[in-house]
Parts: sequence; C-alpha cells; structure tokens
Amino acid sequence: MPRILVLHGPNLNLLGRREPEIYGVVTLEEINRRLQKVATEHHAEIEILHSNHEGGLIEAIHGAMGRIDALVINAGAYTHTSVALRDAIAAVDIPTIEVHLSNLARREGFRQHSYLTEVAVGQIMGFGADSYTLGLQAALLYLSHHGA
Amino acid sequence: MPRILVLHGPNLNLLGRREPEIYGVVTLEEINRRLQKVATEHHAEIEILHSNHEGGLIEAIHGAMGRIDALVINAGAYTHTSVALRDAIAAVDIPTIEVHLSNLARREGFRQHSYLTEVAVGQIMGFGADSYTLGLQAALLYLSHHGA
Amino acid sequence: MPRILVLHGPNLNLLGRREPEIYGVVTLEEINRRLQKVATEHHAEIEILHSNHEGGLIEAIHGAMGRIDALVINAGAYTHTSVALRDAIAAVDIPTIEVHLSNLARREGFRQHSYLTEVAVGQIMGFGADSYTLGLQAALLYLSHHGA
Amino acid sequence: MPRILVLHGPNLNLLGRREPEIYGVVTLEEINRRLQKVATEHHAEIEILHSNHEGGLIEAIHGAMGRIDALVINAGAYTHTSVALRDAIAAVDIPTIEVHLSNLARREGFRQHSYLTEVAVGQIMGFGADSYTLGLQAALLYLSHHGA
Amino acid sequence: MPRILVLHGPNLNLLGRREPEIYGVVTLEEINRRLQKVATEHHAEIEILHSNHEGGLIEAIHGAMGRIDALVINAGAYTHTSVALRDAIAAVDIPTIEVHLSNLARREGFRQHSYLTEVAVGQIMGFGADSYTLGLQAALLYLSHHGA
Amino acid sequence: MPRILVLHGPNLNLLGRREPEIYGVVTLEEINRRLQKVATEHHAEIEILHSNHEGGLIEAIHGAMGRIDALVINAGAYTHTSVALRDAIAAVDIPTIEVHLSNLARREGFRQHSYLTEVAVGQIMGFGADSYTLGLQAALLYLSHHGA
Amino acid sequence: MPRILVLHGPNLNLLGRREPEIYGVVTLEEINRRLQKVATEHHAEIEILHSNHEGGLIEAIHGAMGRIDALVINAGAYTHTSVALRDAIAAVDIPTIEVHLSNLARREGFRQHSYLTEVAVGQIMGFGADSYTLGLQAALLYLSHHGA
Amino acid sequence: MPRILVLHGPNLNLLGRREPEIYGVVTLEEINRRLQKVATEHHAEIEILHSNHEGGLIEAIHGAMGRIDALVINAGAYTHTSVALRDAIAAVDIPTIEVHLSNLARREGFRQHSYLTEVAVGQIMGFGADSYTLGLQAALLYLSHHGA
Amino acid sequence: MPRILVLHGPNLNLLGRREPEIYGVVTLEEINRRLQKVATEHHAEIEILHSNHEGGLIEAIHGAMGRIDALVINAGAYTHTSVALRDAIAAVDIPTIEVHLSNLARREGFRQHSYLTEVAVGQIMGFGADSYTLGLQAALLYLSHHGA
Amino acid sequence: MPRILVLHGPNLNLLGRREPEIYGVVTLEEINRRLQKVATEHHAEIEILHSNHEGGLIEAIHGAMGRIDALVINAGAYTHTSVALRDAIAAVDIPTIEVHLSNLARREGFRQHSYLTEVAVGQIMGFGADSYTLGLQAALLYLSHHGA
Amino acid sequence: MPRILVLHGPNLNLLGRREPEIYGVVTLEEINRRLQKVATEHHAEIEILHSNHEGGLIEAIHGAMGRIDALVINAGAYTHTSVALRDAIAAVDIPTIEVHLSNLARREGFRQHSYLTEVAVGQIMGFGADSYTLGLQAALLYLSHHGA
Amino acid sequence: MPRILVLHGPNLNLLGRREPEIYGVVTLEEINRRLQKVATEHHAEIEILHSNHEGGLIEAIHGAMGRIDALVINAGAYTHTSVALRDAIAAVDIPTIEVHLSNLARREGFRQHSYLTEVAVGQIMGFGADSYTLGLQAALLYLSHHGA
Repeated sequence: MPRILVLHGPNLNLLGRREPEIYGVVTLEEINRRLQKVATEHHAEIEILHSNHEGGLIEAIHGAMGRIDALVINAGAYTHTSVALRDAIAAVDIPTIEVHLSNLARREGFRQHSYLTEVAVGQIMGFGADSYTLGLQAALLYLSHHGA
Repeated sequence: MPRILVLHGPNLNLLGRREPEIYGVVTLEEINRRLQKVATEHHAEIEILHSNHEGGLIEAIHGAMGRIDALVINAGAYTHTSVALRDAIAAVDIPTIEVHLSNLARREGFRQHSYLTEVAVGQIMGFGADSYTLGLQAALLYLSHHGA
Repeated sequence: MPRILVLHGPNLNLLGRREPEIYGVVTLEEINRRLQKVATEHHAEIEILHSNHEGGLIEAIHGAMGRIDALVINAGAYTHTSVALRDAIAAVDIPTIEVHLSNLARREGFRQHSYLTEVAVGQIMGFGADSYTLGLQAALLYLSHHGA
Repeated sequence: MPRILVLHGPNLNLLGRREPEIYGVVTLEEINRRLQKVATEHHAEIEILHSNHEGGLIEAIHGAMGRIDALVINAGAYTHTSVALRDAIAAVDIPTIEVHLSNLARREGFRQHSYLTEVAVGQIMGFGADSYTLGLQAALLYLSHHGA
Repeated sequence: MPRILVLHGPNLNLLGRREPEIYGVVTLEEINRRLQKVATEHHAEIEILHSNHEGGLIEAIHGAMGRIDALVINAGAYTHTSVALRDAIAAVDIPTIEVHLSNLARREGFRQHSYLTEVAVGQIMGFGADSYTLGLQAALLYLSHHGA
Repeated sequence: MPRILVLHGPNLNLLGRREPEIYGVVTLEEINRRLQKVATEHHAEIEILHSNHEGGLIEAIHGAMGRIDALVINAGAYTHTSVALRDAIAAVDIPTIEVHLSNLARREGFRQHSYLTEVAVGQIMGFGADSYTLGLQAALLYLSHHGA
Repeated sequence: MPRILVLHGPNLNLLGRREPEIYGVVTLEEINRRLQKVATEHHAEIEILHSNHEGGLIEAIHGAMGRIDALVINAGAYTHTSVALRDAIAAVDIPTIEVHLSNLARREGFRQHSYLTEVAVGQIMGFGADSYTLGLQAALLYLSHHGA
Repeated sequence: MPRILVLHGPNLNLLGRREPEIYGVVTLEEINRRLQKVATEHHAEIEILHSNHEGGLIEAIHGAMGRIDALVINAGAYTHTSVALRDAIAAVDIPTIEVHLSNLARREGFRQHSYLTEVAVGQIMGFGADSYTLGLQAALLYLSHHGA
Repeated sequence: MPRILVLHGPNLNLLGRREPEIYGVVTLEEINRRLQKVATEHHAEIEILHSNHEGGLIEAIHGAMGRIDALVINAGAYTHTSVALRDAIAAVDIPTIEVHLSNLARREGFRQHSYLTEVAVGQIMGFGADSYTLGLQAALLYLSHHGA
Repeated sequence: MPRILVLHGPNLNLLGRREPEIYGVVTLEEINRRLQKVATEHHAEIEILHSNHEGGLIEAIHGAMGRIDALVINAGAYTHTSVALRDAIAAVDIPTIEVHLSNLARREGFRQHSYLTEVAVGQIMGFGADSYTLGLQAALLYLSHHGA
Repeated sequence: MPRILVLHGPNLNLLGRREPEIYGVVTLEEINRRLQKVATEHHAEIEILHSNHEGGLIEAIHGAMGRIDALVINAGAYTHTSVALRDAIAAVDIPTIEVHLSNLARREGFRQHSYLTEVAVGQIMGFGADSYTLGLQAALLYLSHHGA
Repeated sequence: MPRILVLHGPNLNLLGRREPEIYGVVTLEEINRRLQKVATEHHAEIEILHSNHEGGLIEAIHGAMGRIDALVINAGAYTHTSVALRDAIAAVDIPTIEVHLSNLARREGFRQHSYLTEVAVGQIMGFGADSYTLGLQAALLYLSHHGA
C-alpha cells in the first residue's frame, strides 16, 4: 500500500480567504478532504502537513526518509527562493511531484522559476484545487510503474 | 458529451524510437490508444491529430472553433519558438491543457520557456506517457467545473 | 500602373472574431475590400494573399520577384520569430512596408522586436484596419518617389 | 473641424542640412508646407511647433489641453530618453501619433526603444517626409472613427 | 481607535550594537518607546513584535487578520529575499507601510530590490529611527483617509 | 528658523487633472497650501518652486546654496533620467528628501530606478499628497538632529 | 557505398540571385552539380533536397532514417530559430554536418547562434559554395572512420 | 584559549547518506569528532551546532557575541539565498571562515554566488570533510595573528 | 586663424566649490583664463559658453555651424544621458573633442558610457583642469592636419 | 606554389595524451604528418609552428607577412580570450582558416565565442584531426579562387 | 614521498611591496620559506616556480606531468582571464589546489570568476600568506586519501 | 629632470602597415621620433619599449619601479583583456597615462572596456599619433603639479 506525503508551504493555511481571484475559494481543509478521498479510492495511505517555516518543511522531508514512497508538494513562495528545500528533496531521494494552484506563467517574473522542478519527477500547475488531486494521481501512477 | 482535441507537435511521430532515455519507449500509437480508453471511460469524445508543420497545427486549432470543448496539446519543439501557435490558442478561446513527456526543467536552457503556458489553463510535464492521460483528466475536470 | 502585393500572416483569417479588444471587429474580407478600393482610387493593381504557413509566405514573396513593385505585409506572429521571412524579403529586394493592427509597444515583451523592420522601408502600427490602408498609401508614395 | 498640433523635437530645425543620407534633403519648412496642404485638403486646422528644449515640448503639450484634438509628434532624440515627454502625453490624454523620418530599426541600439509609443495611438516611421503626412492622415482617420 | 502592528525583522534585535555607521546607535527598545509615544499622541493602539524567523513574521501577519488596521514593517534582510512574506501581506490585505533605517540606494546591489514594496501602500527609508515614526504617521494618515 | 525649499518637477502642474487613478485628485496648489500649513506649525520657512525644465530645476538647486537648510524634491520623470539633477544635489551639499506621490514599485520598469536616491538622505513614496507633508516632517526631523 | 542526404533550407533556391555580396553568384543548381561530382569521385551516393518549409525539412530528415548514412545540411535561417529541426536530427541519430555559405560571425547578432551545431558532428562555414563540398568530404571522412 | 563556534546549515544532518557522490560518505558526527580532535591538539575550545532553520542559525550567531573568538560556518544552501545570515555575521563582527564540502564551481549556476564570503575572512571549499578541519586551522592561524 | 568653441555643461558653473575631491579646486573662470592663454599662444580664436540646459547646449552647437572650426566640450552629466546633444554634434559636422575633468572609469557605472564619444574625434579625461587645455591642443593639432 | 602556415596554439603539444575523450588520440606529430602529406598531394608548401605563448603566436603571424599565402590556425584556448591574436591576423591581412578539433558548441559557455572567426575567411570544427586537413583543403580552394 | 609543485603567477614577485593593504607585507621569499618548512615537517618534496608569463606557467604545468603529485597554484590575475591555464591543468590531470592571498569576493567584479576552480580539487582564499600553507596542507591531505 | 617610460603593446610594431584606415599611416619609429622631440623640448628623459608579450610588458613595468616618474602606455589589444597588466600598474604605483590611436567608442563592443583606465591617471584616445604626444604632455603636466 503506497504511502504519500502531501506538503503545503507558506500561506496556504489562508487558502479560500487569500486572493481568491488567484487561488480560488476552496479552503485547505477541503483540499485535504478531497486528497484523502482520492487516496482511499486508490488504496493509498496519505499524510498531510502544512508549515509556514522553510526549516519546518525541510525537516518534514527528512522525516519522510524510509517511510514515505512519494511526495506531493506545493511549496508556495519557497518554490522560488529555497535552495535548501530543493537540497532536502534531492537528499532523501523520494519521488516528488510539484503542484501549484495557479498558472505561474501568468504571474510575476519572480514566480517563473522553481528551484524544485529540476529535482522533481514532474510538475502540475494551473488547475486550482484539482492540481493536488492530479498530483496525487501522478504520484500513484509513477509508483505503479516504478514500484512503491 | 465533452469533445476534446489532442494535438501532437513535431517529431512526436518518432516517439518510442526517438531518444528513449528522454522520451520513453511508448509509441504515439500506444499513447493514442490510452487516451481513447480514458476518453471512453469518461464518456468523452476525442479527436487526435499530429503535424510536423507549425501551420498545420495552427489550422487544426482554427478548425476546432465551435466544435471542440477543450484542447490537450504537446506542441513539442514549437512550444519554445512559436508565437503563432500561442496566438492561435488565444484566438479560438478554447480551454487548453499543455502537456510534455519530459521534465523540461532538467533540459537545455532554451526549453525552459513555453510560449503556450500563459494562454493555457495549466501545464503538466515530466510523467512520460502519463502526462497525456493526466492532461485529458485535467481537461475533463476543468469542463466539469466550467461547463463543456 | 504600380502592382502591390499585400500579405496576411498567421491567424489573420480569424480577424474580427479573434480577441477583438486587441485586433478590432473588422474582418479580413472587409480589410481586403478597403485595400482594393484605395488601390482603385490610386490606379494601382493589388494582389492579396493569406497564409498560416511560414513557408507559404516565403514562397509568396519569392513569387513576387519581377512581377510586383512593392509589398505590404502584416506577418502576424512570424514578425517576431521568422528570420526566414526576413531573408526572403531581403532576397527579392522589393520595397516592403510592414504593418500591424495593434500597437506592439503596448503588448508582451516578445512582440517588441520585429525581424522584418530592418529590411523594410518603414513600419506603420497601431491604427487597426487603417494600418493597412496607410501602408498601401505609404507604398504608393514610396513608388512615386523611387519609380515603380 | 479637427484641430491637430504637429510637434518637432530637437535638431529637426537643421533638417535638409543634417546627415541627409539618414534624414533626407527636405527642409522642415517644406515639411510644414506639405502638412498645411494636407490639412487644408482634409478641412483640418493645424498648428506646428518646433523646440530643442524638452521642457518646451512638455509645455507645448500642456498648452494643447482642451484646444487640440490630436497630436502628431516627432520627438527626435527625446523619443529615446524622455520619460517626462511621455508623462506629458499621458497627462493631457490627447490621441497622439508618433512619427519618425528614418527607419529606427536600422540605426543604433539606443534608438530601438521609444518612451512614447506605449502612450501613443500608433507609430509611423521610415518614410522620410512622408512619415509626417501619413501621420497627419492617420490622426484624421483616427478622429473620424472616434470623434474630434 | 486605530490598531497598528509594528514588525521588526531579522537582526534588528542587535540595533545600536550592530554596524552603527549604517544603522545608527539607537536601540530597538528606544525605537519601540518612541513609537509607543507617537501612538499615544495620536490615540492609536500599537503592537510591536520582533522575529528572526521568516515563518515567525509570516505567522505574525496571519495573526493580524481581522484585528489590525495597518502594518508598519521593517523586514530587514528578508525584504530582499522573501516572496513568502510578500505573499503573507498580500493575503491578509491589511494596508502596509514598509520602512528602512538606512538608505538602501547607497548599499549593495542586492539591497536595491524589495519584494514587499509592490504589495505595500508606500515606502519610507533612510531616516534612521525616524523612519519608524514617520512610517507610523503615514499609517495613521492613510487610515484617516481610508477609514480604520 | 529652518528654511526648506520644495521643488516640483515636470508635469506636476497638471496634478489633480492628470491620471487621477495614479496621482490622485489633489491639485498642486492644495499640496502647496498643506505644506505651508505644516511649515507654519513647525516654525519653518518654506519656498516652493515648480519647473518643467531640467535646467530650471538645476538652477533652482544652485540658487539654494547658502540660503536653504533642506530640500524636499519630487523630480517627477526626471527622477529616472537626470544625472544632471543628481549632480546638482551632490554639488550644493544640502540635505535632500526625495518624495513621490505614487508607489513607484507598482509602475513601469523604467520607474524602478531613481538617480536621486543615492545622493538624498532618504526617500518617501506611495502616500499621495501625504508624501510631501511626510517629506517636510522628515526634513525638519533631520535638521533637528543635525542642526539647520 | 555511403549514402548522403544534402538538405537545403529556406531561400536557398534563390542562390546566385539573392544578395550576391553575401552569398556569392553560384546558383543552387551549380552547387548540386559540384556535390554530385564529388560524390561520384568518392563512390558515394547522394540525394539532394530543398524546402522552404520547416515541416518539410523535418519530414525529409525523418525519411532518412534507416536509408541514409550521413546528412549535410544548410538549414538557412532555420539554423537560428528551429528547435524542431534540431530535435529531428537528434531523433534520427544520423551523423550530421552543418554547413553555411557565409561566415556567420561577420553577420547580425541573431545569426551567431545555431540550434543545430550541438547535435551535429561539426560545422563548416564561410567558404561559399566550397562549404558544401568540404562538408561532403567531412561526411565521407567521418564515415570512413566510423563506418557507413 | 581560543573559543571557536562551528555552525552546520540545512540538510547537513543527512551527511553521509545524502548524495554521497557530491558530499562524500563521512557523517556529520564523524566530522564533529575530527573537529574536536583538531581543537584539542591546538588547545582550542570548540562548540558545534546544527540547524535547518535560517532563524536558528541567525540566533546561534547572535548568541556568540562576547563569547566566541571565531566562527567556522558551512551554511549549506542558505549560503546562496540568505542575506539575513550575512547580516548576522556582519552584525556580531566575529572573524568568520566559510567552508564547503564540495567544489561549488563545479555545480549549478545558483551555487556560484555566496552571500557570506564578502563578510567572511576567507573561504575554503572542495576538500570534503577536510574543508572543516582546514577551516578550523585557518581560524586558529587567523587568531594567532590577530589575537583571540 | 582657427576658431574654437568651448562648451561647459550642467553644474560646471559650481566648479571649485563642488565636490573638490572629485573635480578639483580650480574654478570655471580660472579654466577659461587658461584656455584663453593657450589659445592666444597658438594664435587661435576662442569662444566659451556655459549652459545648464540641454536645449541651450544644442542651440549653441547649432549656432556654431559655418562659424566655428572645432568644438571642445565637457557636457557634464548630459554626456551620459543626452542623445539630442549627440545628434546636434553629428548634425553640424564640426570636429569635436570630448573632455572630462575626472577619470570616469573610476566613478559610478552610469558614467561609464558617453553618448558623445562616438561622434567626437577623440576623448581626453582624468587630468582635471588640464583636460581642457590638452583638449584645446588636440583640437588645434587636429585642425593643423585637416585644415581649419 | 602556394605557401601555407599552420599554427598550433597552447596545450596542443599534449595532443593524444590530453583529455582524449574530447580531443581524440591522434598526436600533434601525426597531424603534422597528415598535413604534410595533403600539402604534397596538392603541390603546396607548408610551414608548421606550435607555441604556448600568445606573444609567440602573434610574432609568428607577423613573420608570415609577405611570405605566406594563407594561414590555418587552431589557436586553442586563445581563440576565446585573445584580442591581440585577432588583431595580428587583421594586421597582416593574410587569408586565415580557423580550425578546431572538438565541436565547441558542445562545450562550456566560454568556448562558444571566438575572437578570430570574424577576421577569418571561415571556420571548420568538430572533425578531430580531420579539421586540420579539411582546413588545409579549404585554404587551397580559397587560394585557387582568389590567387595565391 | 609526495612531490608538490607550487606556482606563483604574474606580479607575485612584487609581494610585500605591492598594495600591502590588499596583499599584506609578507614577501614571496618569506612565503616560499614557510612552504618549505611545512613541506619538510610533512616529509614532502616541494618545487616552487614564479612566472609573469601565461605561456611560462602553462609550460611549467606541462613539465609537471609524470613527476609531480599535486599542484598548488596562485595564478594571480590569470585566474580570471586564462582559459589556456585551465586547459593546461585539465590536460595534465594532476590534482590542483587554487589559492589566493586576498578574499576575491571583496574585490572588483571581474575578480569574482576564476577559470581554474572548476578544474581544481578546491579553493582556499582570503588568509594572506596562510592561504599557501593551508593549500599545501590541503594538497597533502588530498594525497593521503587518494594516494600520491 | 622627469623620466618617462613609453610602452607600446602588441601589434604596434606593424603601425603604418596595419589597417591604415583605422590606425593611420605613421610608423612606430616616426611616433617614437616625435615623442623624443617633445621630451627634449620639455627637458624630460624618455625610454621607449615595445613588446608583443603580456609578460614582457608586465616586466617592463616592474623594471620601472624606483627609476621612472610616469608611464605613457598604449597596451593595444591587452587593454581589453589583461588584468595582469592592470595589476602591474597598480603594483608599481607610478602615475600612468593610457593612450590609444583610434577612438575606441567607434569600434567593436569588446574594445569599449579597458582594464587599465581605472588604475591610470587619465585616458587620451582618438587622435592618431597625436594621442602619444598629448599623452606625454599630460604626463609632464601631471608631474609638474604633483612633483616628479
């Protein structure tokens, strides 16, 4: 039974209340419910964690070593500034799916670069809350090809 | 019943035979079969078209106006060089999902920019043949929220 | 009697239906009618051609050698990406007027550069459908100074 | 009866005597005569002003508020360096046509950018003295569509 | 009665002892006393918080939602590196005044850009400890115009 | 009694009538009245001058030598283009406060750089007409610390 | 007996008539005759193809798979803009020699970069029509070392 | 007796298990043992601290003020992104030696710049675990010249 | 008898009083006296003019046409920002010597580029007041070779 | 009988022993033998010289004036850094063929630019030792067209 | 017994007399004495060579092949400009330690890049004369791990 | 009696024969004669040296320490590439005048930057052979102010 860790980065706790024209009106709790539902449907185990701290996210990734089969991460703003998060993903060597709610190509220049994509399996962005469930499906498909 | 057009760009006809360490061993025919299967499962109608010609892809997009509900496109190398393709997508105003087999962030600098993403709903990349089926699912999810 | 070739590039066939807030509501057929009218008033002969294919536009330019006195071209998106079109214009050595419907300076960064202007006599942009008729007048004025 | 202000920027008083291989042999007086003639033909009123001073041009634009229907401006070298001139045009909110004698795309790199185009209706360049008369026609066409 | 939150970012706890030729000899405690005094004079309520942690500052901003009318922030070095802090300010949608002790234009290149200014009402810098009291006055003026 | 010179740069005479969504509806006369009021309250003498000419502003600064204790300047568009204005401020060695009505960080790229900040004591921007009164207060605070 | 495909890109059909001060006076037919002669001398089989269409060149390369031992290509302007052509060469994995008539280092900045060189064995440029015959010799030498 | 603080930044706790082809197989515990041994040999006192948190490292540096004679720091990924860490080092004014396990010049472009080197005495990199012991020796040599 | 025009740009009227560590303690009057002395020694006629206005300098150059044999100019800050001044020099086609008191290579980045040098005969900088007298000698030497 | 000088730049004396995966296993002596053989076949006289010194190569080029008909040069690393070598080639005005063993487009960024190509007739690269013999043939072809 | 070659690049012969505020007051002779002493203590053999000639340093490196176990090099200014020196180090494949007296990060922009680091084992800089002895120790440590 | 060293860099021995449209027809011998004449007139002693070797020029500068009062140098192409030459000038701390025959601002981009100007007193360029004599005069003027 594949075990997936879903990580939410900074400010995502405000989802639904924060700039809804960019991030939509769905709350983080609702997203987590949907993820849990998809996981159950696919007989997967899921852990979900949110942190506003770069160091907190890093240590969550460290803690996944030897326990978790795949990582689905929306690192929020740290996507664009955190080499340390990238190094953590590379260090634990767990297949990682990068997701984003909004289509970053339509946003500010500094959001056009992600430090994480190069160490991830792939990236899904622009589908609002669906980005997460598509990301979870992508992780499960990946594990079905490569073994959990 | 939603109607989806899937477009394959230049060199994708060689899939499976072309640089398999980058693009995988699955052929375009096999991808098309899988897409057809997912479409059938979701009660969607699907059209699939491949062209090595920029102008051919543009005219396929023009031809979708008033007939097609969503577009799933892997524009191959034209992703990085074709403003005309971008303009075609913007002109027909059909929701578009951009997909890529490989994780472009791991490749040459000139593949880091896509002219299409800004006019697409979102982007999915790095999952090999799964990028297409995830893209089709993303299109169907999008239409389920916004109406076909 | 001066002979002018007017070339329309990719996506211009959708004019009037395509992003009217940028390109206006006048159709290509209407523009062609207006051009024909101005040509008749100035006792000029006019040929009009549209292609979505870079190669098609190139070959239309080749075909103008020895037959056509001046070229009025709106190369659409190829303006910004086609060195081959520029080379075709330079090769046939026919005086060329570059026109654009929209004011490119108000649009995306990648539309700020034209490969064609350097090999054209001059450029007219921002006047919607009037850009074409002003371009035709500019061509006729040019020929009146330099001989057809 | 539409009222048009034509503004000539720095060094244009030397026209005809200054680098004729770039700017042609027609003098500013001759250009003004031709503009007057076109205005008369189109039943338009025309004012013409030249200044070598950035501040002088700014104040001429201020003075046009509430009196003038459209502005035709060749700002000469200030085209490339004057944000203040751009701000003056934006401030008075009079439709403005930018004209240039030479084809700037064929000249030095620092002449490739205009601060004015983005706040103008459109731009006409490369046709020598004809750029002015085409610019005046463009202004009159614009006013005929949008009202003087 | 307007409620203002003043946030001090990393290393500001060392104020007075840290590079006094750049940051002055006034301590953070003294600045806080002066802010309290100005607040009292203007019948405003003030909260003051310092953190060396990016995540700590983010959560302080989250905690201000629904309680605080304006934010005065000196984010120290995070000014130049933290997209997450910018997102937090944009998310809570509280009018924010950015202040700096030193004149950043006189310092290293990497201090010339602030991620925060674009989401702030305005910026005050270069006046040493006075930057804070001017910032507080700016916040109160802003609230007097727009309502607390 | 401290003597302050307030300088208004190009196009500021149109304030209130010019792009009110950017610059607000307060006129320059109203700003000057408010400045006069603040000066009176603080027992300061104030001179106010507006010029649309770069050279005019330079000579106003020269004329302040030996007479004026501090300068509050909104150089408008010359902020971004005038090295000569910067040199004038550096030459007379009078403490200078740079103010702007709008938040330049939210505007065009070419407004992100000021030639003046580096030779000013500090900068205040984004508070509309309040930027001036805050600037005057900053000047008076500065003089109270360093002597008029 | 080695089989070589020689590909001519856009505008090369005008050779001899097109900008002879850059490209020389030799026609494409004459170049083809010389190539045929060198091929015959070296007991090699040669196919020659010209297209003005990017897609046409791509499909010619696809068609070479399994039939052709080496490719000599002058992609003309597509050299500088076509990632799709590069991908076609990489996809078919046939040793490729890039040739140019003119010395690109002496020409416009946008001709200084070739998308093809990185996937080619090597590059020969600047020798006019001789570039082709040297390219054919290079191909034959290459095949003599590595087997046809 | 000189007192040295050795600081390990993010992800260094995974040393030996993390990307051994880049960082080697020696664990952090082993490095700490070696540092302790060198310190003992040189009659120096040593403190060692690891944190994955930027704020944690900043506060460790603050805590060194008045207690520690020199700092040896491997800030890991924060080397390339943390202005706040740089400011902390500058603020406490303790001589600092920057060390790295790998040769950063052989790695990704974003690792070519360190915010710390400019405020450090010097830098040692590329010698794996030896970088630390060389760094400690450098610190002791520095103190022997300048006094602890 | 050669006639030379010496032009002094903005802020040079403050010479001797302005930033003497950069520009020296010699006043403009003293420089003019020295220039007059050198002119007399070389049997040359000299005119000297100072303006803080870009337009003033432009018109001084226009006024030199047909009267003046060579121009020695220190355009001060306009050196780095004025295309209009450059155009004036190019327009009148009088041999021009560019001089600077300070060594611009040792100053701010924005002073490293001069718009004037490309249209001048040559440049002399770094020798304080001697730059002017060397510039006058250079002009006289130039005229002795090319005729006045 | 044409006389050709072949110049080998720095480190080429190590050929065959140096990074054979880049430069091949053929020694410089073997290359020289092959060049001698080709020269003899074509009834040409050949001189060959190697130097690790930039100045040595410059003086070899000077010494060719009036004696040598064409130059074949592999300047090694000086290709990318030596303006002086470029100037020497331009100074002696002898037709020059630039050759490289490896395909520079596949190597480090700093090897993508050659100071020599612009002053050479043409460039041949990527064919290992064959680059030299092709270069010699190119030189002889060039001389056959233009006279020795 | 390990044999080490220490190379000193251009201008290092002036050490102690040259810009002592940057390079210190220790002479090259004193540095060599210290290196000799450390070598003796570690039972290593040492050769020391200085050259102001790029070619001289290249040939010293060539001469080390097959004789020397490790190289300690301070290439002085050639660090930043010599690709040929880099190639020499790569060619002889001897482990190389790059050392610098000063902390290059505190100096001019053009000293921020070293062509040598990428082909060296590692880099030590900023410790004055100690950089050399630390470099020698680093070399001996490296050889102790990898064999001389 | 002041002693001046004049240094000529690479390729200057070909003067008069080398690209006369850029460098003029005067030979180096003639320039040296003129320099000798000016030196004699000013009761100065002069040494003149030419080298094509970067190391040779460096050592000539070293040899000037303690013997020479000022240096006049035309470093030719090394101007743009030699940090080592710059360091030599800074090391010996002899006032240096940089001269160039041609006006570098009119030439290739890579000639727009000089490594030497920042460590020189000043620069003179564009006056052909007169640049040298003006440079010698500048050196003598400088010494007359600052003592030989």
